[in-house]
Amino acid sequence: MKPIVSIIMGSVSDFPIMEEAIKFLEEMQIPWECNALSAHRTPELVLDLSKKAKERGIKVFIAGAGGAAHLPGVVAACTSIPVIGVPIKASISIDGWDSILSILQMPAGIPVATVALNGARNAGILAAQIIATGEEILYQKLMVFKESMKKKVIEANQKLQG
Amino acid sequence: MKPIVSIIMGSVSDFPIMEEAIKFLEEMQIPWECNALSAHRTPELVLDLSKKAKERGIKVFIAGAGGAAHLPGVVAACTSIPVIGVPIKASISIDGWDSILSILQMPAGIPVATVALNGARNAGILAAQIIATGEEILYQKLMVFKESMKKKVIEANQKLQG
Amino acid sequence: MKPIVSIIMGSVSDFPIMEEAIKFLEEMQIPWECNALSAHRTPELVLDLSKKAKERGIKVFIAGAGGAAHLPGVVAACTSIPVIGVPIKASISIDGWDSILSILQMPAGIPVATVALNGARNAGILAAQIIATGEEILYQKLMVFKESMKKKVIEANQKLQG
Amino acid sequence: MKPIVSIIMGSVSDFPIMEEAIKFLEEMQIPWECNALSAHRTPELVLDLSKKAKERGIKVFIAGAGGAAHLPGVVAACTSIPVIGVPIKASISIDGWDSILSILQMPAGIPVATVALNGARNAGILAAQIIATGEEILYQKLMVFKESMKKKVIEANQKLQG
Amino acid sequence: MKPIVSIIMGSVSDFPIMEEAIKFLEEMQIPWECNALSAHRTPELVLDLSKKAKERGIKVFIAGAGGAAHLPGVVAACTSIPVIGVPIKASISIDGWDSILSILQMPAGIPVATVALNGARNAGILAAQIIATGEEILYQKLMVFKESMKKKVIEANQKLQG
Amino acid sequence: MKPIVSIIMGSVSDFPIMEEAIKFLEEMQIPWECNALSAHRTPELVLDLSKKAKERGIKVFIAGAGGAAHLPGVVAACTSIPVIGVPIKASISIDGWDSILSILQMPAGIPVATVALNGARNAGILAAQIIATGEEILYQKLMVFKESMKKKVIEANQKLQG
Amino acid sequence: MKPIVSIIMGSVSDFPIMEEAIKFLEEMQIPWECNALSAHRTPELVLDLSKKAKERGIKVFIAGAGGAAHLPGVVAACTSIPVIGVPIKASISIDGWDSILSILQMPAGIPVATVALNGARNAGILAAQIIATGEEILYQKLMVFKESMKKKVIEANQKLQG
Amino acid sequence: MKPIVSIIMGSVSDFPIMEEAIKFLEEMQIPWECNALSAHRTPELVLDLSKKAKERGIKVFIAGAGGAAHLPGVVAACTSIPVIGVPIKASISIDGWDSILSILQMPAGIPVATVALNGARNAGILAAQIIATGEEILYQKLMVFKESMKKKVIEANQKLQG
Repeated sequence: MKPIVSIIMGSVSDFPIMEEAIKFLEEMQIPWECNALSAHRTPELVLDLSKKAKERGIKVFIAGAGGAAHLPGVVAACTSIPVIGVPIKASISIDGWDSILSILQMPAGIPVATVALNGARNAGILAAQIIATGEEILYQKLMVFKESMKKKVIEANQKLQG
Repeated sequence: MKPIVSIIMGSVSDFPIMEEAIKFLEEMQIPWECNALSAHRTPELVLDLSKKAKERGIKVFIAGAGGAAHLPGVVAACTSIPVIGVPIKASISIDGWDSILSILQMPAGIPVATVALNGARNAGILAAQIIATGEEILYQKLMVFKESMKKKVIEANQKLQG
Repeated sequence: MKPIVSIIMGSVSDFPIMEEAIKFLEEMQIPWECNALSAHRTPELVLDLSKKAKERGIKVFIAGAGGAAHLPGVVAACTSIPVIGVPIKASISIDGWDSILSILQMPAGIPVATVALNGARNAGILAAQIIATGEEILYQKLMVFKESMKKKVIEANQKLQG
Repeated sequence: MKPIVSIIMGSVSDFPIMEEAIKFLEEMQIPWECNALSAHRTPELVLDLSKKAKERGIKVFIAGAGGAAHLPGVVAACTSIPVIGVPIKASISIDGWDSILSILQMPAGIPVATVALNGARNAGILAAQIIATGEEILYQKLMVFKESMKKKVIEANQKLQG
Repeated sequence: MKPIVSIIMGSVSDFPIMEEAIKFLEEMQIPWECNALSAHRTPELVLDLSKKAKERGIKVFIAGAGGAAHLPGVVAACTSIPVIGVPIKASISIDGWDSILSILQMPAGIPVATVALNGARNAGILAAQIIATGEEILYQKLMVFKESMKKKVIEANQKLQG
Repeated sequence: MKPIVSIIMGSVSDFPIMEEAIKFLEEMQIPWECNALSAHRTPELVLDLSKKAKERGIKVFIAGAGGAAHLPGVVAACTSIPVIGVPIKASISIDGWDSILSILQMPAGIPVATVALNGARNAGILAAQIIATGEEILYQKLMVFKESMKKKVIEANQKLQG
Repeated sequence: MKPIVSIIMGSVSDFPIMEEAIKFLEEMQIPWECNALSAHRTPELVLDLSKKAKERGIKVFIAGAGGAAHLPGVVAACTSIPVIGVPIKASISIDGWDSILSILQMPAGIPVATVALNGARNAGILAAQIIATGEEILYQKLMVFKESMKKKVIEANQKLQG
Repeated sequence: MKPIVSIIMGSVSDFPIMEEAIKFLEEMQIPWECNALSAHRTPELVLDLSKKAKERGIKVFIAGAGGAAHLPGVVAACTSIPVIGVPIKASISIDGWDSILSILQMPAGIPVATVALNGARNAGILAAQIIATGEEILYQKLMVFKESMKKKVIEANQKLQG
């Protein structure tokens, strides 16, 4: 199946974090693609990927990066597809503050939907929620997922009581 | 027309900030609704609004709050509709850090798509981008809007040169 | 004996921190209950627990959570019983700043009595102090506890001298 | 009537902030006393006031201070009465971070129930909630107050709609 | 004369800050060019300007931006000309921390020479110092400038004494 | 010999940090005393120690503490002897910011001479410098110590070259 | 009379802050000198002033600066006279954090006795306390000053009661 | 060959970080020298080295330091050669914020070209870029290096796909 979520990260070393997004998309059977391209080392490739995403059928971007994390913003500059940004606490990061602020504080006109530090799983869920705005069956799946989280909390709480 | 974006803010005093989201939705002719309800003063109303949003036809939430800004997270807890969070630098805020972190750092399972501090206009744009994933005409409008931003920058730059 | 302090935490993984509160309540022979319920995964259960607490005889809440820690605030929204908030430096936390600010910076009208990061033991002591405002014997116990802390300091200091 | 809440602040210049606590106590008809005494300029007076509070019938302390805000902790060191700390963003403060951390981060054994920066009104409410643990009528008053806040939000929201 | 320093800023609203760099270059008679182009609104123009700078004879870039300040990094991604970054405390900035970290924390391989918040004058001086590494006369001018700063300090100090 | 520097720390667990001060005083043959007393657990003892220090011949205090570090300020409140404060990054500390701000940001009238986080050795040196203002021989010793630091740097640099 | 306290500041624009130190020294009749010399614009003059201070009879330095505030550290590098550092929240400062950390975090071997942000009055008091370690009459004056602060607090508190 | 880049660090313990700059200079065959000299322990040596650098043929300084990192600023005070500053997260550092702000926030007139925390490799690249402004062959080498980074990203991305 053709991918509809495009995951992009600044470096292959971000993969262990970003993989959590992929796992959730797999659970929801949402086809995805994944690239490790740097906004600073390969700017043209990032622009190219972003600009052609729409015609390739991409509906949502998930972009993760650490340090001065420009990748999500650069992708968002090149498309009107929603871009979800994942700040990553990489070795270069100052406790993650740099990646959070570089992704979150985008200027008016070019939003990036930022999730928590290292929050790739939530990025996957948010991507699914966005796609579900036009796909009723996926929305139902997400509600089932929500229900399953609730159940797990209740069961864990019952064990705690016992 | 029935609203498809539901704007919610923690207090009517947040309206001057949140109005920027409404203005953009109006530009894009996206029907919206707007409520000022507190997650702490009116929790049941917030839960009720969030849970019934789907059946009312809402496709995206935009939730803004300041200080210990729980509103976006509480809405996200009650629905699988995407929730965009707008941290607000209210008078109670510690330079906005409290609202940013309270909205951004959501636990795995319950994402909030956070935008910049006081970034309500970007929240409006992001909402439009999300809806446009299922509405080609709106996507085209957003690309026209993107083009118009570019033009303005170029014109302003030409004036600067002159 | 019926519990009069209700401890609630966002996840069972918070238990090793929150256990310190339980230990102090046990020392003071104050009956307690303990639940691990999430404000985001099980919002209705949290509301229900909070609203019915008064009639169940609860006098104080101790609520601990990490990251965007909404739990203490959500509990406080549903009751007029005092709520003590314990910010937890969970793996998701940005050095604990997110949980501190999410709990501390509550809006006017809905206080949460915040203690130090991971300060569950102090939450237990504060709960006991609150109950002691109406229970003279407990106040005496707390003064004995205070005296015992002083003694330990003095003895440790004498060893240091020796 | 004999005061049961003792308000103390580091300087008379803190009065405009701390007054909000008094106003709420007045609304609830809770008798109070108020002193402006410095932990650093008048340590003995602060110790004396704190130690004799219990026998004077005081049930709760509210202590506010700015900068290196030691006052709430020094009071808490001298009594087992619950102490509510109000961090104040005074002119000397570094954006309030110093007063927040000086009050919040108390060592194990000596809790201070910290509220939001400049959150004196919430300190008043929390004091009332603490006293209400032993006074059913006050609890009912607090629930009425809670209800009135809800009403105001609903009315303001209706105006916003209109 | 053909410009050898290229000044670029994210928005014309940054001009009052960035003008300080121009003033210093004028003092040193270093020819410059100036553009207000956004990395997010006009990414292709920024790439184009950066890539062709070398052949146009540019020797140093000075790039200023506020908020999630990607401009200096995007320029640096496209050229091996040294790029001086000026973090700007714009209205969107969180006290300037976002622009500082977005500019400073560049990944290995793509340096940006960051100066102080709003430090455009120092950016101008640094640009001159860089050019002076290959231009002895300019170095002498810079030493004269250094000497003149020293004199001013000494004179001001003498007045203070008097 | 009668001690002239009084070292005080909030807990015996601070000893491994504070020991560095003692080591320097020993090098300089300055007699010292050392106590581990808590401003919160043993306030009267701290007041007593501080007030009687002058008549016991103490010329300088060195006070170290972590978290909400009130100890140096409480000592300074009780004496006009100079008090050197050592912020300690204890387990309870939020990266040390709490102890730094609690010690540094003292109100006008009651200074604490704050040194770097965990900077006990510098506290010892500063104490010696203060005593040396009235003791020429000690000043000479400090200059010899300064010279020896210089030598070590030069030797290490020579090795680096080799 | 020959000055025994040497006040130095990075710029004449720091004078309105640093003047508070002078005022206190005047109250205590301690002779002082005052220079505005920059560690960066006039490094040799700062080194010269610092090195010759001892032979000129200086007993304490008070050094104030803003931004990357190197002045106190550079003075401390050149003398064994105690150096009191005053971080100044100058226009260039990032909320004062830069000047605080640049002054406070000195490496082992070269202490600077740091006081609160803009805390020049406390620097004056600390200087007096240091000199008083060798001058009994000054110590008595400082105790009288301490007593007078206490009195003012008590009188202000009495007015508040009235 | 005579060195044209002078590397200086505050302590030999900074060498493992600063070595990355040397490695890059070696790759580019740029001759360098390296010294470990402290701005605080050996101020005269630092001034001497900085002042005589020009006549020794030095074209760029790279200065690294941790904590209250004055070294880059002190070097910059003594020369008009461009100075690149490397903030180092040393054991004394508060998460690196102190070294970043001490190096970055230089006053107008004395720029330091600051790179990322521990970013010594980028300092080496920036030094090469600066020298390349007057040396066409080096510029070509830097473009080849840039191209090689791009290739590595593309290859790593292809592996990720496979």
